[in-house]
Amino acid sequence: MVELADFGSFYVGGRRVEVRGRPTEALYVSSSVPAYPWDPNGDFFVEQAYVQYFIPARRRCPLPVILQHGGGLTGACWETTPDGRPGWINSFLEAGFATYVIDTVERGRAGFCAVPGEWPGAPVSRSLQMAWTMFRFGPRYGEAFPGQRFPVASIDAFGRGFVPRWAHTIPLQQAALIEAIRKIGPCVLVGHSQGGEFGSAAVTAVPELVRAAVFLEPSGFPDRFDNVRGRSFLYMMGDYIDRDASGLWGPLEPKTRATVEALAKGGARAEYLSLPERGIRGNSHMLMMDDNSDELARLTQDWILDAVG
Amino acid sequence: MVELADFGSFYVGGRRVEVRGRPTEALYVSSSVPAYPWDPNGDFFVEQAYVQYFIPARRRCPLPVILQHGGGLTGACWETTPDGRPGWINSFLEAGFATYVIDTVERGRAGFCAVPGEWPGAPVSRSLQMAWTMFRFGPRYGEAFPGQRFPVASIDAFGRGFVPRWAHTIPLQQAALIEAIRKIGPCVLVGHSQGGEFGSAAVTAVPELVRAAVFLEPSGFPDRFDNVRGRSFLYMMGDYIDRDASGLWGPLEPKTRATVEALAKGGARAEYLSLPERGIRGNSHMLMMDDNSDELARLTQDWILDAVG
Repeated sequence: MVELADFGSFYVGGRRVEVRGRPTEALYVSSSVPAYPWDPNGDFFVEQAYVQYFIPARRRCPLPVILQHGGGLTGACWETTPDGRPGWINSFLEAGFATYVIDTVERGRAGFCAVPGEWPGAPVSRSLQMAWTMFRFGPRYGEAFPGQRFPVASIDAFGRGFVPRWAHTIPLQQAALIEAIRKIGPCVLVGHSQGGEFGSAAVTAVPELVRAAVFLEPSGFPDRFDNVRGRSFLYMMGDYIDRDASGLWGPLEPKTRATVEALAKGGARAEYLSLPERGIRGNSHMLMMDDNSDELARLTQDWILDAVG
Repeated sequence: MVELADFGSFYVGGRRVEVRGRPTEALYVSSSVPAYPWDPNGDFFVEQAYVQYFIPARRRCPLPVILQHGGGLTGACWETTPDGRPGWINSFLEAGFATYVIDTVERGRAGFCAVPGEWPGAPVSRSLQMAWTMFRFGPRYGEAFPGQRFPVASIDAFGRGFVPRWAHTIPLQQAALIEAIRKIGPCVLVGHSQGGEFGSAAVTAVPELVRAAVFLEPSGFPDRFDNVRGRSFLYMMGDYIDRDASGLWGPLEPKTRATVEALAKGGARAEYLSLPERGIRGNSHMLMMDDNSDELARLTQDWILDAVG
């Protein structure tokens, strides 16, 4: 498949929390040490992000690509698809892209903050039913749109990859992505769904580093366009938006089109790519998992090479 | 570095939870859709584990190796060390081992259960201070044992990799590891710390699949020895156990020695390897992160090849 020159991971961002004055409690940590005295005091790091990187030996793209997952998911969404096909990471490595995969704050290997009193409220989880309509698999759970490309028979395998989320963490996740980009350097950002909201903050905050960005059905957008000149942006949208039963895509689709117009007006090269308008029909919100995920990965790679190659 | 024939991930185990009858709440999911109606009802998967695998093109070991992390950590502990050196995964791939890395239930990309009422109590986090003594970096936070091999100057980078834990999840984590082994097939298991407690359950439950096991300072042990004949076990222990300030290693060390004796009596090939007794001094509990981590990885690989190669 691919020869790797390097592989590894690091953490970025976050802050140190100091806890003092709480009582020690007995905690079950092992059947061999049934009541270990657990001291909740001390120093803790919270709100960091995790970055796993894969550097192919033969690089075709001069800039690394950062894959930023969306809400309720982790970097694993770019790996093996729910029905067992190779994921976008495989495709990007075979095509010669140095690939950095983020697990954002609170998700996956980044860990979440369990220090009492630090984070407000409880996390929530997305049900299979909510995912089904929000990700436009069909009009209601168990019923798929005709021509649906998401592997709906593997919905259970997909659901095992869901992770909880808090509602207040978006600014922390944006900050962590910006820290990751500062560490990685000039790059191309690929952001899916809520990853588009994180990525939009990075597009604005570190314009000299994010040379190009691909947003896959993003849920957030840049809020200034005076520093976008000479940069390239692709917004990729799947099918069934006019039949969305979740209420999410009605407001997002026109905002996406308006963002592309504003980017172009600001001097960027900006493209709104509706897959069905190009004749590629049947894609859900989970573009990197649909049955044509390899085709969409190559389309994305070709666009990136054209933009920065 | 290494040519990969395959790379990917999958989830194993877990159960479906059905939630009904709860009210929908408005949730902030995006700056573009400020109050999305979030329905907490539906079906959720909880208590699965995540498995990321790397298959080198040139294999030297006939069986795959499973790396099972310990408490408060994730599979990332086998990646880049806190001070930036290549991790055990790199070493195992270069040596020709198909390598499966687990994130167990509640940790990392496996996700935790946020469905209200399902899991008892709140999770706890391990402070830098507790890690310092429990992992035998030194007698008290900031003071290292003479000759300490853990990169203590990188304690903050290490701490960013800590994740919370619940106290009731060990049986779930054991079940998930057993499921992973059933899916992977005949294998060699490498378990660190609490990963030894998960792994010990697997050694007992699927004796025909776990052909050999390496336990790195485990916190749990097999409880039967009538099915171990013909199998191989290595227990590797670091330094400073006699100077442990945490109170953890006093009870664990004799249980480890007794386990090796019981395995040998049951007909297994079982070895208790005290690194300092072999002249390798200065190792902490974090054997895969200490400054001789590559040497210990090769030592482990040679033992595995001798056992099953």
